[in-house]
Amino acid sequence: MSTKRAIGLDVGGTKIAGGVVDADGTLSTEIVEPTPEDSDAEAVSAVLLDIVGRLREKHPDVSAIGVGAAGIVQWPEGRMLWAPNNAYRDWPVREQLEAATGLPAVIDNDANVAVLAEARLGPRPYRELVLVTVGTGIGGGLVLDGRIYRGPTGRGAELGHIVLNPDGPVCGCGNHGCFEAYASGTALTRMGREAADDDPRGLIARLGAEQGEVTGRTVTAAATQGDAVARDLFGRLGRWLGVGIASLANIFELEAVVVGGGLVSTGDLLLEPARRAAREFAYATQVREPVPIRPAVFGGDAGMIGAALLALEDARPSVG
Amino acid sequence: MSTKRAIGLDVGGTKIAGGVVDADGTLSTEIVEPTPEDSDAEAVSAVLLDIVGRLREKHPDVSAIGVGAAGIVQWPEGRMLWAPNNAYRDWPVREQLEAATGLPAVIDNDANVAVLAEARLGPRPYRELVLVTVGTGIGGGLVLDGRIYRGPTGRGAELGHIVLNPDGPVCGCGNHGCFEAYASGTALTRMGREAADDDPRGLIARLGAEQGEVTGRTVTAAATQGDAVARDLFGRLGRWLGVGIASLANIFELEAVVVGGGLVSTGDLLLEPARRAAREFAYATQVREPVPIRPAVFGGDAGMIGAALLALEDARPSVG
Repeated sequence: MSTKRAIGLDVGGTKIAGGVVDADGTLSTEIVEPTPEDSDAEAVSAVLLDIVGRLREKHPDVSAIGVGAAGIVQWPEGRMLWAPNNAYRDWPVREQLEAATGLPAVIDNDANVAVLAEARLGPRPYRELVLVTVGTGIGGGLVLDGRIYRGPTGRGAELGHIVLNPDGPVCGCGNHGCFEAYASGTALTRMGREAADDDPRGLIARLGAEQGEVTGRTVTAAATQGDAVARDLFGRLGRWLGVGIASLANIFELEAVVVGGGLVSTGDLLLEPARRAAREFAYATQVREPVPIRPAVFGGDAGMIGAALLALEDARPSVG
Repeated sequence: MSTKRAIGLDVGGTKIAGGVVDADGTLSTEIVEPTPEDSDAEAVSAVLLDIVGRLREKHPDVSAIGVGAAGIVQWPEGRMLWAPNNAYRDWPVREQLEAATGLPAVIDNDANVAVLAEARLGPRPYRELVLVTVGTGIGGGLVLDGRIYRGPTGRGAELGHIVLNPDGPVCGCGNHGCFEAYASGTALTRMGREAADDDPRGLIARLGAEQGEVTGRTVTAAATQGDAVARDLFGRLGRWLGVGIASLANIFELEAVVVGGGLVSTGDLLLEPARRAAREFAYATQVREPVPIRPAVFGGDAGMIGAALLALEDARPSVG
């Protein structure tokens, strides 16, 4: 119970970050490495253990390790079952880390640990909170009654794959019309390319030609310059974000929905249409307030900080 | 702790039913009264107290009262905040019942208590279960980790109002494209009327003319007689049901989804297309089994039995 500092690791498709984190969320040392090209369990393990070793040299007092990773993680065993962008499958991360380091470890989905950071260390503590991360895809994490909801074995809380229109565009997961297919950076890229095709002289097409291709960033740049077409695309993206949030808020009784991920840096461009749609699709507003939508407090560090917090709360010395 | 039998009351838009229920779900006496035309708190209270009085005359040993009611109920206070089809608003049901009867009482949403009955007394005990009731509307109840999920104050679990298409048909709640707008008896009526308009010589139109109007029952009758158009409408209704179920199953990690309500009596006509769609829209099936969809064990008695079970589990003698 005297655990005060833990290592937090964030494993993504392009980079692996690690840091030492206090119970109040202070991040004292950070190491970032690229995710190995051959992102199998062995290669990623080697990077994780290297980062842990270097962090422990500087901070020998760390008492636990937390890992947040994109994908589906079996809980509490800490087996990485499947990840959308990495090659590993059914990888016993927790067992390996504990055996190699002698420290207790926890492994969870990256959005699950990020929502924990927001719930514990946001502007006030939240007991009922949804985090929606809008990046390449949509990630989702859920805190109910003060605890991460992940289902009994960690296969729950796949919030990016609620269906917003079964006849909608194909999602990265293979289904149609998922939240992620409508309200992610990938969706913004798709809409931006359609807009550039429709109007080859428009700002989106011209910026895209300069950049080599149209991506979500192109649309963001055009919207920031006041381009009406790009702003309209953000209006549509934000509306879908708000529809998905309203759908989740009709299921849960939430204190807030926090929006994180790369695209939240566009601020009200994204969040204002989301707030409008979330109010429009809120159920029974006579007796249920539409849920407030707020930008996340933690940016790219949410995974590390949340993973370390989870380790401080839940990691127990392993037996044997 | 020696509570063994409770009164279960089910308050709906058209009838109020009460019975005495054992811990194993056995319903020993049942009284049904019509919901008063003027369905305000006073009139409905009088009916509830009359039923309770008559049941206690026969079963003086009952130790608690449970009420399941359509609408949003504040928990644990037991205030009926709002109901779609009744006139009462902000009605302190629990307080009134306890004062008038001297028995501890619990009040909850009707689908919440029905899912408890299915979770406790279904083919096996379930710890993670969704109940979807397909009747005039869509009701939903949720058991997580063995307990009813209703949010901290009872305003959660409005599963009928997740959004399946924001540009879809108007729902009874005023929003567009809710689960309820697509997969309820009301949706079947709407589709049946469209089909009758499209083909005035078709079976749906002819049966509707005999019955005075086309309703969901007309479509059911036509489908039962093998009418291809009516069967196709059931295919569409069931598909929407499966899409909504898949969406919920991507959020939770469920052992099963149980379908109840009047329309489940149509069996595989409704459930087979639902199962197909739920498999089609299931996320990450490499590591997550598509959720099994089963008909509810309890029919019209689910509300009474579940309300009584909740009373046996949760009702505590009130203080003062």
